[in-house]
Amino acid sequence: MNYYPGLGYSQGVTTAGTARETTTRTGPGAARQHTLRERNLELVARAVYEVPEPLSRAGVASATGLARATVSTLVDQLVAAGLVRELPAVTGGRAGRPAVPLVPAPRSVVGLGLEVNVDYLGARVLDLTGEVVSEQVVPGALHDSDPTVVLRRLGALARDVSDGVAAAGMTVAGARLALPGLVDPRTGLLEVAPNLGWSSLDPVPLLGLGDLDVRIANEAKLAALAELAGGSDVAAPDSFIFVSGDVGIGAAIVVDRELFLGERGWNGEIGHVVVDPAGPRCSCGAFGCLEQYAGKEAMMRAAGLPPDSALSALVACLTESGTAGPAGGRAALPAGRALGSALADFVNLLDVSTIVLGGAYTELLPWLRADVVEVLADRVLSAPFVDLDVRAAQAGPQAALTGGARAVLQAVLADPAAWV
Amino acid sequence: MNYYPGLGYSQGVTTAGTARETTTRTGPGAARQHTLRERNLELVARAVYEVPEPLSRAGVASATGLARATVSTLVDQLVAAGLVRELPAVTGGRAGRPAVPLVPAPRSVVGLGLEVNVDYLGARVLDLTGEVVSEQVVPGALHDSDPTVVLRRLGALARDVSDGVAAAGMTVAGARLALPGLVDPRTGLLEVAPNLGWSSLDPVPLLGLGDLDVRIANEAKLAALAELAGGSDVAAPDSFIFVSGDVGIGAAIVVDRELFLGERGWNGEIGHVVVDPAGPRCSCGAFGCLEQYAGKEAMMRAAGLPPDSALSALVACLTESGTAGPAGGRAALPAGRALGSALADFVNLLDVSTIVLGGAYTELLPWLRADVVEVLADRVLSAPFVDLDVRAAQAGPQAALTGGARAVLQAVLADPAAWV
Repeated sequence: MNYYPGLGYSQGVTTAGTARETTTRTGPGAARQHTLRERNLELVARAVYEVPEPLSRAGVASATGLARATVSTLVDQLVAAGLVRELPAVTGGRAGRPAVPLVPAPRSVVGLGLEVNVDYLGARVLDLTGEVVSEQVVPGALHDSDPTVVLRRLGALARDVSDGVAAAGMTVAGARLALPGLVDPRTGLLEVAPNLGWSSLDPVPLLGLGDLDVRIANEAKLAALAELAGGSDVAAPDSFIFVSGDVGIGAAIVVDRELFLGERGWNGEIGHVVVDPAGPRCSCGAFGCLEQYAGKEAMMRAAGLPPDSALSALVACLTESGTAGPAGGRAALPAGRALGSALADFVNLLDVSTIVLGGAYTELLPWLRADVVEVLADRVLSAPFVDLDVRAAQAGPQAALTGGARAVLQAVLADPAAWV
Repeated sequence: MNYYPGLGYSQGVTTAGTARETTTRTGPGAARQHTLRERNLELVARAVYEVPEPLSRAGVASATGLARATVSTLVDQLVAAGLVRELPAVTGGRAGRPAVPLVPAPRSVVGLGLEVNVDYLGARVLDLTGEVVSEQVVPGALHDSDPTVVLRRLGALARDVSDGVAAAGMTVAGARLALPGLVDPRTGLLEVAPNLGWSSLDPVPLLGLGDLDVRIANEAKLAALAELAGGSDVAAPDSFIFVSGDVGIGAAIVVDRELFLGERGWNGEIGHVVVDPAGPRCSCGAFGCLEQYAGKEAMMRAAGLPPDSALSALVACLTESGTAGPAGGRAALPAGRALGSALADFVNLLDVSTIVLGGAYTELLPWLRADVVEVLADRVLSAPFVDLDVRAAQAGPQAALTGGARAVLQAVLADPAAWV
């Protein structure tokens, strides 16, 4: 398990590890061979989804190299399946039949992202246009929680959201459950989530979502998939380290628009990189891990706030202290140097020069940036020769919910024949 | 620049980033398209080189799916070019013409590996069978040395070795120069080698090797290529972290038999991972880097030896101290815990579970292993679920010399038509 395939497309909403590929790795035998028709259907769907300007059938034929008659049949099937929508015909400048622009179908087939994190539960539904059509995020204090109780609550949340979109005529194609720990996609097991206090757990049945296809993934990996889709006006970089900073701190590695997953996808555990061997004991059992300096609760404590305070309280506290803030330049958060130190290790080991800070770090970046940049400049061997770029994530709050929903939709687009 | 292509073969001597692929990335335009004949020639050469049992022409035809007559012509060309050798014909069990076994040609076309490290200069010639046919390794103290002087000396060494093998009728196909620092294969520049005190340097012209095709690469990356070829009786793992421990400490990442290089190949700089932020200042300018605890000179100092002592002196010292050694189990080298800490960060960030210790660490492993294993168990989040495997390198001393020579020969095999 090296790369999630299926991430190589540079535009559009298609940014996810795909169910089909997961099947390839985890199924009992070789993956099903796709027929020519199935491949052509995928080609046509990708053309509609990935070319920024809406294409007509003729445009799709030109973009794919397929015959016009073939394209027309396949487009009709995608329209009937609810994956592609026809806009009103427009008459072009040239003579001939008016062209019918084809676009991703809104509010038709949708993906469900689910997440258990240490301080919230969430469910979010995205449609094929990338729009959020429904979501519920519920704050909670889930340290050392009972997984049966928590997952049953999330299951109820998920049913609530799913029932709502189903009542509006949408079809939920599947779900991804983001967890802040080591998950094994082959077995569906969560091995360990230190901050939740969960281990050796089969979470999907506890959700009680019946026949819905639910798969689990690491929170930071799904958040990075959301990030890969880019912001409203800024495209994602091709290669970056995505760091998701909450109570726990996870990371994902994207190289050439592909997630790099090491041997099992158990990489990016930056929260447990050594900052100071003489530091405090971490939930993982080791001493001086990054989480003990730059995890959300550690940052709250350093600011004199209760550890389960809302992020807004920390931001207010930082804003009020005159010495810091966006205008200041110097950081007021001791977390900045610790985060810089762990990131410097990451860059020295990996050679990826763009660092995207997500989770709570997105909002805290003005108070972190100066220290992070300074430590990177001091510690990264290649710093004099590379433009190290530390930037805020574009994907918005609870990005793993967005990434999970996108992963489901990517699986749909990778095998549209299953929907036709 | 993500992967060196051309590493996907699981057997034989062909384990290197290829010159052809380098050309693809760095040349002014698209790579030259290979003709069908050129591709078939490569197929035939690979069959001879990669199938463990010597094949006859008929066996090559069967292994490649090419017609017998085509194979026969191509084999004749490879024999004439000195890339393939015919063994005496053997009569098989069945009736028919005796089969002529084909093997890699010994002492014909050879590759030259060159290296400047902090405590030695070296040149090593390998032939297509993987045998070392000539080498010279000269100890030296090259801290903060004059690159012009050092590279001229290495050039003289290289000429000496090359002239010797040429006089014996061999053809040097090219050379790779291994350097302990950040090299840019696109420009051929060494950006920085902290322990040599070299920076912003174009080293190849200083060798004075005339028209010989010399390319530069990072020392640990070339050593990992040598390691990928496997030992005399143990195959290399498919995925591993290779750590080259000398005065400086470098690393290479191999996933699914491919070097993972990040964005520029400037990864694996484990020597500069934080072990203790309150630690001593490193040659890179930062504090508490791994090199300050587990670099060769740091280990010598910790043992009360002069920093430029030979490795054998340290081994003798460790062997004599009754408390430690292969039989002991507890490590006597303070470097072990520091190395374990940096390796734990590496595994947490990367998820590669086999660690191959090369350079001086190979011989020191009996005194390092217990501490390394203990710290990995304490600090790696996935340790309870993964068999972390810490093992000694198989590739022998100055592995980058071997890897460099192999890289040259891999380039030959990737484009045998250039030799026909």
